[in-house]
Amino acid sequence: MNNTTVTAPKGFLAAGISCGIKQSGKKDIGLICCPTGAKAAAVFTTNKVVSASVTICKQHIKTAVTEAVIVNSGNANTCTGTLGLKNAESICKATAELIDANANQVLIASTGIIGHQLPMDKISHGVILAAAKLSSSPNAGDDFAHAIMTTDTKCKQAYKSLKLGGAEIQLAGTTKGAGMIGPNMATTLCFITTDADISKNLLQTALKDAIGNSLNKLTVDGHQSTNDTAIILSSCLAGNKSIIKADANYKKFAKALDELMTDLAKQMALDAEGATRMFTIVINGAASKVEAIKAARAVADYDLVKCAIHGGDPNWGRIICAVGSCGVKLNTNKLSCSIGGVTVFKNGQPVKFDPKKVSKIISQKEHTIVVYLGAGKFSDFCYGCDLSKGYVTINADYHT
Amino acid sequence: MNNTTVTAPKGFLAAGISCGIKQSGKKDIGLICCPTGAKAAAVFTTNKVVSASVTICKQHIKTAVTEAVIVNSGNANTCTGTLGLKNAESICKATAELIDANANQVLIASTGIIGHQLPMDKISHGVILAAAKLSSSPNAGDDFAHAIMTTDTKCKQAYKSLKLGGAEIQLAGTTKGAGMIGPNMATTLCFITTDADISKNLLQTALKDAIGNSLNKLTVDGHQSTNDTAIILSSCLAGNKSIIKADANYKKFAKALDELMTDLAKQMALDAEGATRMFTIVINGAASKVEAIKAARAVADYDLVKCAIHGGDPNWGRIICAVGSCGVKLNTNKLSCSIGGVTVFKNGQPVKFDPKKVSKIISQKEHTIVVYLGAGKFSDFCYGCDLSKGYVTINADYHT
Repeated sequence: MNNTTVTAPKGFLAAGISCGIKQSGKKDIGLICCPTGAKAAAVFTTNKVVSASVTICKQHIKTAVTEAVIVNSGNANTCTGTLGLKNAESICKATAELIDANANQVLIASTGIIGHQLPMDKISHGVILAAAKLSSSPNAGDDFAHAIMTTDTKCKQAYKSLKLGGAEIQLAGTTKGAGMIGPNMATTLCFITTDADISKNLLQTALKDAIGNSLNKLTVDGHQSTNDTAIILSSCLAGNKSIIKADANYKKFAKALDELMTDLAKQMALDAEGATRMFTIVINGAASKVEAIKAARAVADYDLVKCAIHGGDPNWGRIICAVGSCGVKLNTNKLSCSIGGVTVFKNGQPVKFDPKKVSKIISQKEHTIVVYLGAGKFSDFCYGCDLSKGYVTINADYHT
Repeated sequence: MNNTTVTAPKGFLAAGISCGIKQSGKKDIGLICCPTGAKAAAVFTTNKVVSASVTICKQHIKTAVTEAVIVNSGNANTCTGTLGLKNAESICKATAELIDANANQVLIASTGIIGHQLPMDKISHGVILAAAKLSSSPNAGDDFAHAIMTTDTKCKQAYKSLKLGGAEIQLAGTTKGAGMIGPNMATTLCFITTDADISKNLLQTALKDAIGNSLNKLTVDGHQSTNDTAIILSSCLAGNKSIIKADANYKKFAKALDELMTDLAKQMALDAEGATRMFTIVINGAASKVEAIKAARAVADYDLVKCAIHGGDPNWGRIICAVGSCGVKLNTNKLSCSIGGVTVFKNGQPVKFDPKKVSKIISQKEHTIVVYLGAGKFSDFCYGCDLSKGYVTINADYHT
């Protein structure tokens, strides 16, 4: 069996086990380990309220060599005060002891309900279990991907390999959805492994740029989590010529990372809470790049647009309403909109179209909406998904 | 029968009829008339895309004496280009001819689907029907209130009378809900009649202030309509000493208007699309008034909070997450939250509470959430409602 999980790149072990944080009995502790030491880079939530795990991880990411990432699902360790910080530190320390590393060589991430203290007795046992199961097998990578899931119905993984600097390098990643997904830095938990030999600085730049083009383009409910953490680890064992400057090899690496993370972002959109379909909203003719993305996000986050798409309803007026209310510059005499290539509104005038045809387009698994603002020459885009009764069901009952 | 409709204040006639704009056959044209001439003031949407009716109404509100307000539901007359403007003008002209007034003495408002041209043949007939049915009876006022409804399940009316300046003055109002309600100027369609003798300038000030304390405090889905219009008409026939400066009599009038519109705002929250309950979110300890209202709206618009309230789920972490992500200043060591008087989070630490008790509180028809930011001494509040499957059902199928 071909390994396309986080254990595929050379030098990585992983595990995913259940220790009882989740009442369902599903996997809730994931561990990635790089015994030879990895270079690491990370991007975190910009929410002002952050998980204790984020606070600790921000300190540990400064270390030159990282040996492991420990993740728990089922509890966010957020709004847990000083005890929450102490618990996050303890978990890193316990993990470090088991793999013969220093506590600051262990990165940590958490996801789940906010405001509850971690069940430390269960987690202490869970960390031991996870360390004991560490393996480079595809199953171990798969177990890790399952351990980070919350309301996801599918686990999300992506893989790429390419020739670069005289060697074959590999990238693999996994992410968890599927609610509280707002397009602001990191968006959710995401873990990438690679064996490409690359400097820590360039790894950070590549991660930040790739997130800008992928995870940050996705909005499920416009909600920015307190726990968003994206981490990339590089074992540097591929044997490629070390990437130490922004040359052609770096660009190839960055492009591959970009594609890998876009793949993950689209998997998240399609498995968003209650979502049955996704869409790409493209804004053209904006006065600036900032306004282009602002308008795109306004449309993608507009519940009435999301409901219309869920209902297969070509109610394009809601798209224009969203654009008009988000504060960006626009020329109402040039404002235009097309759905799946069908023009529905042009230069401020409604256009006759076949509603059945457009209904069919927006009922597909994916479609693209284009809005022209007529205010400038900038463009940007965003991924969104429909809003269904499923979202309400999931989120009305999540706690209990 | 006591008249508590828009025809209660002296000098007003009204009508509400069906002319076939709505396929359901429900009332879709409303007309208020003040044959002796009224002073009028209005507040409109700040959306950059506006209904042709808003554009025309903004011109006509400048006239010293207003004689009528004509409203249609079932079609927004928005994104309808030059023909839309021509149609809005024609409706004012046709109405004016029937009541022996000038076209610019007729105000106009529309609500309904965006991007469709008005069915002018039906409307021309409808305006004639409405003018023929004008009456000062309570039924006529009721008919008007029904004619402006869209997805509302109940019609919303409020009434007040008070002694002021040597006479009894009356105020009556009606508004329509129930989706695309964002707290930015006007929010929905709202029509107020009064017989208080007051200057046009003070009428405008009183309306703007009252909206700031009522309709602008309400958010159903954070969506700002392209058609929001709030109009107040004063016949000046009550016989009170004319209110021409901001004295004690003005303050009494303004307070009464404030209470009337708060009553209407709460009726809207409780009849919001799919809503089963409402809540008030109070922000204390903000660094500024602007930040206080920003944080309140962030919580009230947060789908995950709205879903939790729908599920009777005391998942307070989502409230804190919303506050943390909206960009306002906060002190994480002082951040606190209570729900219905029960402290759930204090000084950045979770507090043990009885989840069943809090679940019961948030399952009531109304409850109050208080968040302390610890960043200053400013406060503000906002009304919100829960997010249910009903919202999705209504908005996935609205078009077809």
